[in-house]
Parts: sequence; C-alpha cells; structure tokens
Amino acid sequence: MELNCDLGEGYGKYQVGNDIQIIPLVDAVNIACGFHAGDVNTMKLTVQLAKKHNVRIGAHPGFQDLQGFGRRKIDMDTSEIYGIILYQLGALSAFTKAQHTKIHHVKPHGALYNMACEDKSIAQSIAQAVYDFDPGLILYGLADSRLTEAGEHIGLSVAHEVFADRTYQPDGTLTPRSEENAIIHRTEDALKQIQLIRKEQAVVATNGQRIKIKADTVCVHGDTPEAIEYVQKLRKYIKP
Amino acid sequence: MELNCDLGEGYGKYQVGNDIQIIPLVDAVNIACGFHAGDVNTMKLTVQLAKKHNVRIGAHPGFQDLQGFGRRKIDMDTSEIYGIILYQLGALSAFTKAQHTKIHHVKPHGALYNMACEDKSIAQSIAQAVYDFDPGLILYGLADSRLTEAGEHIGLSVAHEVFADRTYQPDGTLTPRSEENAIIHRTEDALKQIQLIRKEQAVVATNGQRIKIKADTVCVHGDTPEAIEYVQKLRKYIKP
Amino acid sequence: MELNCDLGEGYGKYQVGNDIQIIPLVDAVNIACGFHAGDVNTMKLTVQLAKKHNVRIGAHPGFQDLQGFGRRKIDMDTSEIYGIILYQLGALSAFTKAQHTKIHHVKPHGALYNMACEDKSIAQSIAQAVYDFDPGLILYGLADSRLTEAGEHIGLSVAHEVFADRTYQPDGTLTPRSEENAIIHRTEDALKQIQLIRKEQAVVATNGQRIKIKADTVCVHGDTPEAIEYVQKLRKYIKP
Amino acid sequence: MELNCDLGEGYGKYQVGNDIQIIPLVDAVNIACGFHAGDVNTMKLTVQLAKKHNVRIGAHPGFQDLQGFGRRKIDMDTSEIYGIILYQLGALSAFTKAQHTKIHHVKPHGALYNMACEDKSIAQSIAQAVYDFDPGLILYGLADSRLTEAGEHIGLSVAHEVFADRTYQPDGTLTPRSEENAIIHRTEDALKQIQLIRKEQAVVATNGQRIKIKADTVCVHGDTPEAIEYVQKLRKYIKP
Repeated sequence: MELNCDLGEGYGKYQVGNDIQIIPLVDAVNIACGFHAGDVNTMKLTVQLAKKHNVRIGAHPGFQDLQGFGRRKIDMDTSEIYGIILYQLGALSAFTKAQHTKIHHVKPHGALYNMACEDKSIAQSIAQAVYDFDPGLILYGLADSRLTEAGEHIGLSVAHEVFADRTYQPDGTLTPRSEENAIIHRTEDALKQIQLIRKEQAVVATNGQRIKIKADTVCVHGDTPEAIEYVQKLRKYIKP
Repeated sequence: MELNCDLGEGYGKYQVGNDIQIIPLVDAVNIACGFHAGDVNTMKLTVQLAKKHNVRIGAHPGFQDLQGFGRRKIDMDTSEIYGIILYQLGALSAFTKAQHTKIHHVKPHGALYNMACEDKSIAQSIAQAVYDFDPGLILYGLADSRLTEAGEHIGLSVAHEVFADRTYQPDGTLTPRSEENAIIHRTEDALKQIQLIRKEQAVVATNGQRIKIKADTVCVHGDTPEAIEYVQKLRKYIKP
Repeated sequence: MELNCDLGEGYGKYQVGNDIQIIPLVDAVNIACGFHAGDVNTMKLTVQLAKKHNVRIGAHPGFQDLQGFGRRKIDMDTSEIYGIILYQLGALSAFTKAQHTKIHHVKPHGALYNMACEDKSIAQSIAQAVYDFDPGLILYGLADSRLTEAGEHIGLSVAHEVFADRTYQPDGTLTPRSEENAIIHRTEDALKQIQLIRKEQAVVATNGQRIKIKADTVCVHGDTPEAIEYVQKLRKYIKP
Repeated sequence: MELNCDLGEGYGKYQVGNDIQIIPLVDAVNIACGFHAGDVNTMKLTVQLAKKHNVRIGAHPGFQDLQGFGRRKIDMDTSEIYGIILYQLGALSAFTKAQHTKIHHVKPHGALYNMACEDKSIAQSIAQAVYDFDPGLILYGLADSRLTEAGEHIGLSVAHEVFADRTYQPDGTLTPRSEENAIIHRTEDALKQIQLIRKEQAVVATNGQRIKIKADTVCVHGDTPEAIEYVQKLRKYIKP
C-alpha cells in the first residue's frame, strides 16, 4: 500500500508544511499547481525535491481560491472545471519537463476533490481533462467514488485512496471536516483503521457499521511535528 | 513576411478584440495564457479557432497583472521570470495537446516583452525557460534585441519582429507608448514603413535617421474595425 | 418607484456597460467595489459621474471572483461574508469621502445577492456588516426576502427590489438565470409586469399564479443599446 | 520615541508573525490592508488586538501583489497609486469603525514605501489620498524623505521614521535589502545606532560619514523569537 502526501503548498513569502521531512517517508507526492496554493518557485523546488527523493510526482489541481486554500466549494460549470484541470496539469508538466522527469498521477484538491467524489458530471469533466492531457496518467480519488468510477469509465488507471486519520460515513464518503468526529486524533486509532483496511478491506463507519473499502494508496499529512511522527509510525507499520 | 497578432485576450465576462475577424488575415497568433489576460475557456476556444484556421499557435506569456493588462513593469527576479514563462507555456500546451495540435512559438507580452528586449538577464531567463520547455520552439522578439540575441545564443530559432504602426527610436527600440509619437496613425504611413522594411531592411527612426532592421514577422492588432481594415490593406500589400 | 442600475463594472483594460448613457435615466446606482468587478480608477470615475448626475450612490459588494463576475456561489463562512461586506463598503466610502459625497445604500451583487435572499444566516451577516458600518444606510434586497427581513430585524431601513425583465417563481424568488424562462425578453411584457406591480402590488409567477409583491425600487440594466431604449420606455411609463 | 511594527500579515491559511507577542512591546501598529498581505478576517482580528492593547492603529497599504509580498516595484501611474491608497484606507477604516475605534496614521508598505520616499510624484499622490480621506491622519515616512516632505507640504502631520537594524546610505536613504550590508545583525550595533539617533539625531552612514536624522518613530519587526527578544531590549533602552 502506497503513502501519498500533499506538498508544495507555500506561496510567496508564506511557507508552510515540512516538505523536506515528510518526503523521505512517502512514495508519492501531490504538488499544488498555483491555484489554491503553490507558486512558480515552489513548484520548481518541489519537483526538484521529488525527483531527488525518487517519489512519484502527482499534480494536485484545485479551485483558484488562495484565500480559501481551495477548501470552499465554488459553483463552477463543468467546462470550466475541465479547463482548470487541463491548465494546472500543463503548468506543472512544464516544470517536470524542464527537469527531465514527468507527472505520474493527478489528485484533485480540497473542495474540488470532495465535489468530484460525489458529483458524476464534475468527476467526468476531471477524468476527461486528465485523459485528454495524457491517458497514461493515474487518477487518484476517494475509494469507490464517482471520481474513480469516471476515471475507469473513460479508460484511465485509477488509485483508490483511503485516509487513516479521517472517519467514514456509512455511504463510504468522508465525514466532512465541519463535523466534530471528522478527524481521528489518536495515532493508535488511525493505525487500527489502516490495519482493518489492509487485512479485511473494510472500515468501521461512524454509525458502527463495517463497510467494504478498496485501498491502493493512503493519504497522509506532514503539517506538524506530530504529523511527521505519526507518518513514521504508519510507514513502519505498513512497510516493516 | 509573416503577419502575427495577439489573440484570446478576454477574461470571464469581459470580451475584447475581434478574434474571429482578424484570424483569417494573419499567419500566426499569440495566445494570452491567463496571467495578463485570457482564461481557461478563452484559451480553449482560441486554440480551437487557430487550429480551424490553420495558423501558427504561439504562447503569449506576460506578467501576472490583469489589472495592468501586463503593461506595467514589475521588478521581478530572473528565477521568477523563468518560472512564469515555464508555467504559462505549460498551461497553454495542455490546451494544444488536448486538441492534437501544438505550440509553434513564444512571444512575451507587454512590459515583459519590452524589458526582455532591453535587459540581457531577463532575456536569458526567458530564452532558458523556452529552451527547457521545448528547444524546437521559435522565440519571437523585437528585431535585433537582447531577446533575439539571448534566444540565438542558447540555440533557439528566433523571429525578428517589426511593427508597421509603431515608430522606432534611433537605437532600434520602439518609442514607448507613453510618448506622443509612439503610434503611426495614418495607414499609408504604416504601409510606407513596411515597404521600406521589405525592400531595404530599414526604417526611418524618430530623429529622421535611417536604421537597418531585420524582419521575419510583422505584429498587427485587431481591436477596432479600423484595425481590421488596416490589416486587410497590409495583407494585400505584403501578399498580393 | 425608484429605478436603480449596476454601474462601474469595468476592470483595467476591460470596459463594459454604458454608464454615461444609463445614468441620466436612473435614480440610484450600485457601484462595483473591486471584488467581482470595478477597480480603483473605475470606482473614482463612477462616484464622480454619480455625483455629477445627482443620483443616489450605492455600494454593490460581491464575492471576490472577477473570473466568475461574482455570479458563482462560493461556500464562504458567515464571518468572512461579514468581512467582505465591511471591506468593500469601506473601500467605496473612501472614494465618496474624497469627493465630499456619501454612500446612500448597499445592494449585494450576483450570487451573494441570491444567497442572501434565501439564506437567513448569510442575510444576517450582511445586515450586521452594513449596520456596523453605518446604521443610516439603506439595505436593498429582493422584495420580502430573507435579506430585507434581516435588515429590518437589525434596525436598518430597507428597499424592496423588483425586476421588470425577470420572471418570478411561485415563492416570490427570481427564476434562476440558468432556466430558459428566466428573462422577459419583450419590452411590452416587462412594462406589463411593472404595471401590475405598481397598480396591484402583484406579479404573475411562472405557474400562472398571482402573488403579492412589495416594490420600492426597480432594477434595470444598461449593457446594450436595446437595454438603454428599454429603460427609456420604462422611465417614461413610471415617471411620465 | 515611539516604537511601531507591521502587523496582520497573514492571509487565509497562511499565518505569519508573532502579533500577540510583539503588540505589548510597541506603541503603534501598521495593519496590512489586503493588497500585499492581510485578509478580512486578519484585519478584523488585528484591529481587535490593537484596540485591546491600546496601541495606535495605522493603515499599511501596499501594492496589490501578494505573490511578491508588496516588495516588488510596480510601475503604476500616480492616479492609480492615489486610488490604491484611498481604497485600502477605506477598507481598514470600515473595520475600525465597526469596532468603535479609528485609524491614527498611514505608513505605505515595502516597495511602495521605498518608491514614495524617493519619488516626488508618487509621494504627492499618497499624501493627497491620505489628505482627501482624512486630513487628521499622520503620514509615516522615512525621516526627511520625499514622502514626509509631500505630507508636510499638503498640510498633514508627519512622523519621521528611523530603523535600528537597517544601515543608511550617505544620502539618508536605507541601503536596499539586496545589498549585503543592508541589515544590522548584532543587537548591540542596533542599540548603538538608536542611541546615536536619540542623543545626537545622527546616524553613521555606510561610508563612515555621520549624517543628521530626524526621529519620531522607530520601526521594529516581530517575525522571529530573536526579533521579539531584540525589541524587548530596544524597548527597555528607549523606555527604561
């Protein structure tokens, strides 16, 4: 099972994340493309870092909303969603091209990810844009969501993504961050969730019900010292 | 001698230019890439239009300054200039790729064009970015400027650009738009300037002196009904 | 019955609307404040124009979304909505202050207007911001909507707004622009709607049902030559 | 002698500075107004913080360049500079008004500050905007610069600003940050500079020459733990 992490989320004077500490712990990174976070210098440096550590490079396109860090739903028509995916894929690919490496996968960010996982037409626009750009790219989406469905339908390889530290609703979607029980705070609970996913391809939803789940890749974060420590444990557990 | 024109300069609700009328009259177009003008819908439509009319597609990257339409100098360091060129080239290339066509050339826009034509280190950053993205692209710049020099030096093909309706200073640079005599208003004077360029590779500078000039491509505009009419005359003159 | 119109919607090089032609025909203007449209030069000039024509000056705050012209819903929390109203009111008031005039009213723009007219907590945030800035301002909102309710509840004067050229749904809300029958295209139908509003304080909803409606002010647009002509007729009818 | 500090420089998810630690140590704060840094939530919270600590509230308007944190020169015409000052003053004043407090002074930020201190017409545009907004405001500028001159000429009170940790050129301007010796790194050297300023109204310029300097207010920063410690020492020295 792969570990993936969002990276390159600084902007101008603003620096966030512990990219240098987290990158040796993961297999794949999702690089912000300048819309919800990231700028040209950050993109260049993050591609360099990813290449140096030999991790898979993913594009992490989001809504053009730096103020909301791409976490606010924007009611955009599907032709524009198609366009912003294409635009951001192209932009990142220029930096990989200039450094003689390439994009391996695409994972939408924040509100766009959430909307795509639930809304068929948004999912299709994204899948179409990825396919039109390069049918060899892998589309990352919430396990068994509209997004992975749309990817598979158009002929893309997909990666079913799971979260160790987020709770699941009975329908297999993530509990929204606005809800109190969205986040699993205790490391041992997160590890237990991953254990169940690995061994039995299942999670226990918020209502106590056990639901089946596919899992190709696990999303982790590296924003805090605790986060780094947690990823180290997770990695040790997954790749002993 | 080729005719080139800036296109795709709308943004959201704002529509400008007469792209549909001007495109059959030119050989090459320079498409705004979303920084000083243009958005994802506009870029998509303009690439379609260019493909349909079989004209050469160029990227027209500028400063990220919609408010100033890319015409204000911004004191940016050269690593960032390298980055914004790469980013915009990539972004536009995604739209050409999705439509099974490709970028033919790159021409910086507005203040970035002017700065690159005069400043060696800016010119080099731009040339490097174009080269790193695709050494087969042609770099358009003011005839015999720092920009064409930098392009040639790094190994790019370049196109020396001339203007029919702008006056030249004795050093071969354009008279800045802020000066009264920057624009040649009478069509016959513009045609006369082009005639001299074609026949004798020369222009008459603002001080009356005749200076030598290379000319691979002529920049025209299509913003007004008069502009369209003028380009028609110019085209008739150049390609009888 | 007052006529009001949105004005000052240009941005940088992009000029839209026929501000100079429409302004003599209306009683009140709503000036874009730089978020969905408008910039500092436009705001300054539009305040000058409004002062010269002696029309009431309103702030027209919207989402910070130039790309979508403020017409896309953005899922923003209410404390931020409070903040963007306050910010834009302050910004416009600086231009009125510098020209020794003042803001008379506030009318939210586009998606923010629509959301505020239906969502109580958004309406309250806006009303609170207007009240905190200046309790003497008049809040414009769709007739008998959540927005006018919130304004009245906090102690603001409100103006119930009606539309001559938009159709109404049975619940008194406007038919969304995305629906086919949202716009009343024939001038005589629009005049008929205004006539009914004036004489009987009622409109005929899309299902044929007659519903009661309050009407203090009528919103008109001046984007096209036809629009100007239509406002002239409307004005003649309302103020013979 | 007053201590002033730039505050409220976060943006969305990006949080910077130690506003809570630095504010008890200073007499006046300069709050970012949303153009080069700051957003509506930050502005609201920073005004609250300043009010609570009873420090003087200043507006800190800059170029609309979040990417460059307002530190890049932008070649903007003076009517636009007038406009961006007015706009940002108004925006911040809405937050002070809503909290029943008010703006005390204005200090331009970054590249705009530097340009205004050297260029008479830029200085005049800024002074005019401040004056038109409220002639009772105090204009902060580099001691004896074009900016303080322009303020005095139009009839504003001005505050001559000095820097403890920046070196001075023989003409009384600051050594640009791009030069190696721009910053005074050792706390004791900075304290020595302030001592000379206080006792003899003079600084030793980079060429060793002693030059006269007026000093009403000292600019300090609070970005790092070391910075806080340094300001504590400076404060102890100035206000024993």
